[in-house]
Amino acid sequence: MQAYKKLEERFEKIMTLRQIDSVLDWDKAVLMPEKGVNQRAKQIETLGVMIHEMATDPQLGDWMAGVNTQSLSEWERANLDIMQWQYTHATALPADLVSRKMGQETKTEVIWRKARAESDFKIVQDDLARLLDIVREQAEVKAAKLKKPLYDALMDPYAPHMTSKDVDVIFDDIAAFVPGFLDQVLEKQKEPLPLNGPFAQDIQEKLGKQLCEALGFESSWGRLDTSTHPFSTGIGDDVRITTRYNTDSFINALQAVAHEAGHGFYDRFTPREWQHQPVGASQNMGMAIHESQSLSLDMQLARSREYWQWFAPIIQKAFNGKGPEWDAENVYRHAIKVERGFIRVEADEVTYPAHVIMRYRLEKAMVEGTLQVKDLPEAWNEGFKALLGVTPPDDRRGCLQDIHWYFGAFGYFPAYALGAFTAAQFVDTMKKQLPNVMQDAAKGNFKPFNGWLRDNVQSKGCLYKPQELVEKVTGQKMSTHFFKKHVTERYLEKAYEGSC
Amino acid sequence: MQAYKKLEERFEKIMTLRQIDSVLDWDKAVLMPEKGVNQRAKQIETLGVMIHEMATDPQLGDWMAGVNTQSLSEWERANLDIMQWQYTHATALPADLVSRKMGQETKTEVIWRKARAESDFKIVQDDLARLLDIVREQAEVKAAKLKKPLYDALMDPYAPHMTSKDVDVIFDDIAAFVPGFLDQVLEKQKEPLPLNGPFAQDIQEKLGKQLCEALGFESSWGRLDTSTHPFSTGIGDDVRITTRYNTDSFINALQAVAHEAGHGFYDRFTPREWQHQPVGASQNMGMAIHESQSLSLDMQLARSREYWQWFAPIIQKAFNGKGPEWDAENVYRHAIKVERGFIRVEADEVTYPAHVIMRYRLEKAMVEGTLQVKDLPEAWNEGFKALLGVTPPDDRRGCLQDIHWYFGAFGYFPAYALGAFTAAQFVDTMKKQLPNVMQDAAKGNFKPFNGWLRDNVQSKGCLYKPQELVEKVTGQKMSTHFFKKHVTERYLEKAYEGSC
Repeated sequence: MQAYKKLEERFEKIMTLRQIDSVLDWDKAVLMPEKGVNQRAKQIETLGVMIHEMATDPQLGDWMAGVNTQSLSEWERANLDIMQWQYTHATALPADLVSRKMGQETKTEVIWRKARAESDFKIVQDDLARLLDIVREQAEVKAAKLKKPLYDALMDPYAPHMTSKDVDVIFDDIAAFVPGFLDQVLEKQKEPLPLNGPFAQDIQEKLGKQLCEALGFESSWGRLDTSTHPFSTGIGDDVRITTRYNTDSFINALQAVAHEAGHGFYDRFTPREWQHQPVGASQNMGMAIHESQSLSLDMQLARSREYWQWFAPIIQKAFNGKGPEWDAENVYRHAIKVERGFIRVEADEVTYPAHVIMRYRLEKAMVEGTLQVKDLPEAWNEGFKALLGVTPPDDRRGCLQDIHWYFGAFGYFPAYALGAFTAAQFVDTMKKQLPNVMQDAAKGNFKPFNGWLRDNVQSKGCLYKPQELVEKVTGQKMSTHFFKKHVTERYLEKAYEGSC
Repeated sequence: MQAYKKLEERFEKIMTLRQIDSVLDWDKAVLMPEKGVNQRAKQIETLGVMIHEMATDPQLGDWMAGVNTQSLSEWERANLDIMQWQYTHATALPADLVSRKMGQETKTEVIWRKARAESDFKIVQDDLARLLDIVREQAEVKAAKLKKPLYDALMDPYAPHMTSKDVDVIFDDIAAFVPGFLDQVLEKQKEPLPLNGPFAQDIQEKLGKQLCEALGFESSWGRLDTSTHPFSTGIGDDVRITTRYNTDSFINALQAVAHEAGHGFYDRFTPREWQHQPVGASQNMGMAIHESQSLSLDMQLARSREYWQWFAPIIQKAFNGKGPEWDAENVYRHAIKVERGFIRVEADEVTYPAHVIMRYRLEKAMVEGTLQVKDLPEAWNEGFKALLGVTPPDDRRGCLQDIHWYFGAFGYFPAYALGAFTAAQFVDTMKKQLPNVMQDAAKGNFKPFNGWLRDNVQSKGCLYKPQELVEKVTGQKMSTHFFKKHVTERYLEKAYEGSC
């Protein structure tokens, strides 16, 4: 057999085992009996070790070296590129470093839970410092192998082929934009009439399923369930999303449905014939592009006035709501409410990038050694004040709120904001190419919107590198212009004056 | 490392992968989106190939040969015995025979579905004949390796260490008993007052959960769900059972809950420290002992007058039932109704063994070559008439009703009836040791009943061979006496005169 075919066969096996792993994870998060947690951990670990052995098998390296790239199609070449990229990351670290890192991650995460509960950073400070030492060691090894700067080597798995230089340009621009813009928005924004609950969970669940159906997330190949944290998993003919419910408001649960459906569509609509190969696995495009799909739905579509013109009357009917607070315009005002909040996962579209940018700057400084762990709370609060104008009242609502650093995930954050900017750029192009797309949305017809994303992004799988894809689809490099334009038009209701 | 320890490590890995496989199967049967079927088949096949490779690794044979059995504990010795038994079965057949068998099984099963739908045995006759040829080839290879008669070699995986000689003695005795006994029961039996539905599924579901709770099948380690065919799966801290609902009657759904909970308890209560080794996996005791646990609940407990004294008022209340048809005695009469039915899976406690015995005789004759496939329908109808007094009106209700033979499972049937006899023998001993056990059941206290099964059977794992266990627990060899005694007392309401 050809070396390339051998690689395809092996990667298909690895991806099948990864699919199995995601079934185990979904089951654990959604419905597993509580006591099953240790058994399940053992199952996941056993499978993980087998996958790791297959993914780091030196044979793969030999086969890769032996491929005759001349004979490959465009898709096969892209597939081989991703195989090589994955293999490089999988084999970069010596086993002893991997195992030390895992041990310290597990320990730090447990202590972080205690520290967050008690809102006291000091409790976890020493363990985070030890973990950061290992992370920096990891960064050095990877940086040497990948020939990238320290931080870039860590960011690469989450935002493939992006550099921190690119990110700095983008983030500096937004950091300069947000504070003044936020002042303007808050000044203009009027408090909507209150929508008072309780909003029964079973009715919210029915609305969630109705929304899935309207969006084209079909029950013959998809499921919507409930979990503590919303997520999306699966591929092809079995894609599953979750949301969570709060009877005080229906907005968050339904936004999460739209968000996760956006991720789900990506996993559904990569090309069927490549879904068992790296080039057909959407996560290999990195989190920025993946988030561009969820945020195209969650932020661009599902916070638009047109969307709420369609959805508000349906929700009103489901809850048998009466009064002016149920006017579509008022419900829309709730969905796009902007606040100087402290918590990233609760943040609105305008402030969200600022939450990410300050984390990016802090984690980059920690990895580069210019910020000490002991100084993190102070640096956090300063960074927050500078961008968002307020100071977190405690560590729980400050540097202890996110799990990422405390289980060793440095380099992950930028993708969240890049996804929002990319979503704005994609949808700007979409609206030019489909002038009626939002009028259709106002009638509950989301086929043009989602079809455009499917045809232009999702169906391309990982054929192109992330920035290459953005340029091919929109005709321009990844830019902050479209995000600023978008939020100006939505939140100030006036034309954006900035140049592209 | 010691050879024995190496074996434990490898078998723990195999069992963990088997647990994963059962999660995939459960998910598929209970909630997977319909289109996911091909992806899931690929996942299950990939995992199955890996398990098969591990389970037939020649290294295992070397390690087994190298174990110093003197140094092993009683549990370790029993564990090693089962490893050897599994390895012998797993490696008995040449790869080419396994693959030919699988191919013909898949084909025959598909054609059987068509034949059953059209109620025409001729459609599948040639394929079943081809499959039987391969099964007989398989039997010859296994018989030579195991030094057992042809049929016994096929039965061994389902009823370990049983011989067809033993089975003949037991089944001949019951075959002589049933026809006359059935006449007496039907003569004595009075038609109960009808219980007219519909009985809403959601109320039946609540009753199913209530029954689980009363039985001690707890939601912290177990789940009850819905599937086309009821089943039980999982082990230890994550055991899952299913039932199916029919709004015409609540009896079948709730009996299935009791039945599957009985299987589930076995998987829950094998010794925790052995649950990842063959000696702690209840299915290695064979189906006869496993069915003894489900039938102890389904037949012995959940068809007793005392059980219905407790449960009938609860069900009546749930459905807001009124009138004399809701008297516990009348509901009980529904639960124990005896009929000359044609379908095994719908059969009552009295006729069930006859369904099994006739299948056993036919499949044994087919394997031994004394019955030709073309003569099966006639032989079926004769066998049925002889034991049950009526002739099936068509093949669908005759020799086409069960899937077993059509996917190559010969030797499976006997365990079903042996389980019923063993359940009667266990519960007879239980009642002697716990004289108040049924009075407790009448009050909804099932702890003594289930606790006895746990302490005497389930917690022993596979420490003893099946017949050895029966003798240890009841003080007597496996016998038909207790079943005959039980059905005489329940269905004729008089003392059984037979000697032991």
